Amino acid sequence: MADQKHVVIVGAGFGGVRLAKELAKENVRITLVDRHNYHLFQPLLYQVSTAVLSAGEIAYPTREFFKNYKNVEFFLGKATGVDQERRVLMTNHGEIAYDYLVLAAGATTNFFGNESVARNSYAMKTLQEAMTLRSHIIHEFERASKKTSPSLTEERRRHLNFVIVGGGATGIEMAGALMELIQIFKKEFHSINFDEVHVTLLEAMGSVLPMVPPDLQQYTIDVLRKKGVDVRLNTAVTEYDGNDLKLNNGEVVPTKTVIWAAGVRAQDFIKDCGSKVDRAGRIIVEENLLVPGSDCVFAIGDCANFQHGGLERPLPTVAPVATQEAMQVKENIMALIAGKTPDQLGKFVYKDLGAMATIGKGEAVMNGPMPLLGFTMKAKGFFAWFAWMFVHLIRLAGKYSDFTVSVKWIWNFFFGTRVSRIILSKME
Amino acid sequence: MADQKHVVIVGAGFGGVRLAKELAKENVRITLVDRHNYHLFQPLLYQVSTAVLSAGEIAYPTREFFKNYKNVEFFLGKATGVDQERRVLMTNHGEIAYDYLVLAAGATTNFFGNESVARNSYAMKTLQEAMTLRSHIIHEFERASKKTSPSLTEERRRHLNFVIVGGGATGIEMAGALMELIQIFKKEFHSINFDEVHVTLLEAMGSVLPMVPPDLQQYTIDVLRKKGVDVRLNTAVTEYDGNDLKLNNGEVVPTKTVIWAAGVRAQDFIKDCGSKVDRAGRIIVEENLLVPGSDCVFAIGDCANFQHGGLERPLPTVAPVATQEAMQVKENIMALIAGKTPDQLGKFVYKDLGAMATIGKGEAVMNGPMPLLGFTMKAKGFFAWFAWMFVHLIRLAGKYSDFTVSVKWIWNFFFGTRVSRIILSKME
Repeated sequence: MADQKHVVIVGAGFGGVRLAKELAKENVRITLVDRHNYHLFQPLLYQVSTAVLSAGEIAYPTREFFKNYKNVEFFLGKATGVDQERRVLMTNHGEIAYDYLVLAAGATTNFFGNESVARNSYAMKTLQEAMTLRSHIIHEFERASKKTSPSLTEERRRHLNFVIVGGGATGIEMAGALMELIQIFKKEFHSINFDEVHVTLLEAMGSVLPMVPPDLQQYTIDVLRKKGVDVRLNTAVTEYDGNDLKLNNGEVVPTKTVIWAAGVRAQDFIKDCGSKVDRAGRIIVEENLLVPGSDCVFAIGDCANFQHGGLERPLPTVAPVATQEAMQVKENIMALIAGKTPDQLGKFVYKDLGAMATIGKGEAVMNGPMPLLGFTMKAKGFFAWFAWMFVHLIRLAGKYSDFTVSVKWIWNFFFGTRVSRIILSKME
Repeated sequence: MADQKHVVIVGAGFGGVRLAKELAKENVRITLVDRHNYHLFQPLLYQVSTAVLSAGEIAYPTREFFKNYKNVEFFLGKATGVDQERRVLMTNHGEIAYDYLVLAAGATTNFFGNESVARNSYAMKTLQEAMTLRSHIIHEFERASKKTSPSLTEERRRHLNFVIVGGGATGIEMAGALMELIQIFKKEFHSINFDEVHVTLLEAMGSVLPMVPPDLQQYTIDVLRKKGVDVRLNTAVTEYDGNDLKLNNGEVVPTKTVIWAAGVRAQDFIKDCGSKVDRAGRIIVEENLLVPGSDCVFAIGDCANFQHGGLERPLPTVAPVATQEAMQVKENIMALIAGKTPDQLGKFVYKDLGAMATIGKGEAVMNGPMPLLGFTMKAKGFFAWFAWMFVHLIRLAGKYSDFTVSVKWIWNFFFGTRVSRIILSKME
């Protein structure tokens, strides 16, 4: 239909897919652009890194969501910038003209300009990165198993030292899951002395998990330490050459594995979209989620900086923010199409869903209002873990229209052994 | 124990793993060498290529099999040769001395010396190859979906032309599974005209599936043609530059995808093991599976050429041959340790388990004695498919000691949608 408006959405993450699904029901034409052909359930990426889940279990073919919507076209490509004047999105496969554009491009790893760390450590933001990390961790045990001679002790220990940088949810969850993977390896690597295996979690601030209260922070640290993780607070990384990690206290940790979970920033091209960005490269959006000065370009999710309505700091880079913003943008786009002006659009208000993080199987912390559970609470231990499971299962299973896949996934989550422990990297 | 004999096994395929499992119960020390850290259920590799199964579902961590056997050590490494005089196996991680050596190194793709084909076509013998092929097939549809303009018709058709070379079980199964994948794509690629999608199966001989009788061969061809596969017999490939496939009848097929399933040969290092090899690089073994002239080196499975007891041709490169040979070698090694001489060893006799191949879901052919089913038969259609399923499920589920994994796998096989349709290759 010639009079259909064309909405272009960049990014098939939580925000982009939700928005496309909502708009698909309307009389508009939608092009969803992503550099991958799958939607990724990012909160569980650490489970791919630690061989709990396989890649296919948290990555869903994006086209599958829209098979019944002929007005949605998926475009596999990498956005490279926006020309707001000509109203075109630039990609590595040419330009795409839009009537309305929504930037929902997510985030990438922030190494805060430390090039030696960026070059030599393992990031955890993409599926490929998670799989590379998984292969690497398993490979380190294989390498150590061959270096049994006492003369190789230093080299062997370097293989068996694992350092995680960042005490946010990702770092905490990674540390817990890694300790569990090591328990499985204990049974299988007969020639390794597991007293030599060492997992360290470094946090530059005075505590972990900034989004939960101090008692839950301390609880998290206690649980990790009981599991054998060497948690070090107020400790930052200064340099890493792939062999020796230098800390700000002068210490040097010999290790082949530095896992970087210390920060995120927007994708590079966001700064080339013609709008002002913050220090993390995110677009500072208006209250109606429009990009300042535009009447047709919106930004949502991890690539947007939203701080209105008395917020002390910008909204966090979590899925509920992206999906709620998507709903608001859908309303606002339909309002613009109906003839409203930008100043007449609805303002976004975030409904806080609370924060939660697992610390391995059976242990978690949660805090804040829990609309999905129906009450406000603070919890820890097994109950919190169970609630975490529940929320994540509901969300993930909901992605899969096919019932059998949901069941399979739930089954796997509860009972699954780690069958994904395969090294896919090239042989050395 | 100092008096334990050291058995080194090269290859953790069907033969190698079976042998290691059997020997693990004896008073010997075993080192199992493989260049991958997983055992691969190769007969279902084509299901990874066509996104039915994910990699982790047919690849099992080898160490897991032996976690309760401290006398089995796994060694991740690539065998490079054997010095029979010094009794050492050479690997890319140093030498391993043996008392007994068993070569069970499997097979690799045979391009019969055609370098242009080897360089530009897709092989299907390793997990990595299967995943690369899967990503490529999906990517070709993504590429075609962007080239909708009439001026790009030639280019678009090249993306949508898929050629499979080889009418053996692998080629047939790949063709059937690919047609099913295309049915799924029909719903998702709204901008592709599926009349332009074309799957061709080339076979140099006068029929497909040489191991079944002529009526089943014809049935297989009929079923494939009904599914839309362009089956061409007596047609061989002469050259392929990655864009145009040249056939021996002078025809040129424009295609970006040539899947090579036309032959196998032994790994290269087998010829450097100090024994005579056949044209496919396989060691011509004695009746007791010893390598000629040796009293401690055996060869089994796809890297061995066994032709004794009145066989018209060497035993086929299938799993039952490898596992049965493994059982014989286990007996023979224990006999040698007990003081017997090579001429006193048991001779191998193959119990034919028949042949079967699927032609997509619900269609298969089978022929020969079926000890597992208890009778001799020839069958086709749904019944044959069901029998194929049964046999493969029993075998695969049997690999997994963990019950939940077996159930999950069976569930997936019967009901699974294709969730593994993700492109993992680098963006172009």
